[in-house]
Amino acid sequence: MSEISDLTKSIANFANRRDWNIFHTPKNLAMAITGEAGELAAEFQWLTPEQASAVSGERLKAIELEIADIGIYLMRLCDVLDIDLKKAILDKIEINEKRFPPIK
Amino acid sequence: MSEISDLTKSIANFANRRDWNIFHTPKNLAMAITGEAGELAAEFQWLTPEQASAVSGERLKAIELEIADIGIYLMRLCDVLDIDLKKAILDKIEINEKRFPPIK
Amino acid sequence: MSEISDLTKSIANFANRRDWNIFHTPKNLAMAITGEAGELAAEFQWLTPEQASAVSGERLKAIELEIADIGIYLMRLCDVLDIDLKKAILDKIEINEKRFPPIK
Amino acid sequence: MSEISDLTKSIANFANRRDWNIFHTPKNLAMAITGEAGELAAEFQWLTPEQASAVSGERLKAIELEIADIGIYLMRLCDVLDIDLKKAILDKIEINEKRFPPIK
Repeated sequence: MSEISDLTKSIANFANRRDWNIFHTPKNLAMAITGEAGELAAEFQWLTPEQASAVSGERLKAIELEIADIGIYLMRLCDVLDIDLKKAILDKIEINEKRFPPIK
Repeated sequence: MSEISDLTKSIANFANRRDWNIFHTPKNLAMAITGEAGELAAEFQWLTPEQASAVSGERLKAIELEIADIGIYLMRLCDVLDIDLKKAILDKIEINEKRFPPIK
Repeated sequence: MSEISDLTKSIANFANRRDWNIFHTPKNLAMAITGEAGELAAEFQWLTPEQASAVSGERLKAIELEIADIGIYLMRLCDVLDIDLKKAILDKIEINEKRFPPIK
Repeated sequence: MSEISDLTKSIANFANRRDWNIFHTPKNLAMAITGEAGELAAEFQWLTPEQASAVSGERLKAIELEIADIGIYLMRLCDVLDIDLKKAILDKIEINEKRFPPIK
């Protein structure tokens, strides 16, 4: 089984064992992604580009946790909408390949 | 090589061939994630929970593309910050396991 | 009548005349704000701080429209939740005054 | 002087007295708005539409504070970009009037 489906199943199992499926509707999960994306942005908002590129220690750990939250809700949303995240990403890269011709 | 690192490399390669690495700073990528998360939210914002759970056709396709965009920028951000997305997600699930004891 | 209540009434009137009140629930409006905030972020995401501070012409106009959208949904949300935006802002400034003592 | 310019000046004055102007660039403020919008979304994300429409007490107070934060950063952004928020909103309503003809 693939890495992404493994993670997706762990996340689904986590929700199942807490009876949280009732909360994990597509609309609520989309909203949760904006919430976590906002928290990720908040980690960077007052940093200069240089500071943001050199984050480390506590802040890097906090950023990692926000990234994990976004990944978790994104995989959960794919699960409840029956979307194949890997295929969706590959399809989008292909679309972008045509829209933005490479320069090298 | 793993599925997530494969996707991450395809995304990095796509950026490289367009000289877009200069734009892909952590701060800019975090901002891009909020932008795509906002577009995902916009797909659902006026739908009832029932309509949101039954999305199909054109709207489902649009949602899939927004999800792909979030996934792409999330993997790109992990790449530039040298974060292991799979490990970050598994660590976060473990933290959540302790914070929210399962009821079954 | 105050400027903010005038704007709030114009926005409510606009919604009324389209039978859009049914869509303007607190949850949907909060989601719409994240959507518009994401679009605002998208205008700035690939700009350097210097470019972002010097926006003009078409981009400045686009930014102005996104700002207006956020303001519209924010006032609409205050309206449906019966929140006094001016008072909320003044109260928050007062809280911040205590949390962050001025240095001059 | 108008209500919105009064608030805008109080916010600018607050920043001035803490030497925070250096942080309040257009890009950073746009990012801060997505952060606060995400926190607002987080207050509503797991609520049913009915629960969201009936928020009260502690949660309503928390929502009010998030709304205030968005309002503060929105006015600050207008200030640094020299945008007239009231005019921007009225212009946008006029555009919307043409795009979406009223039904009554």
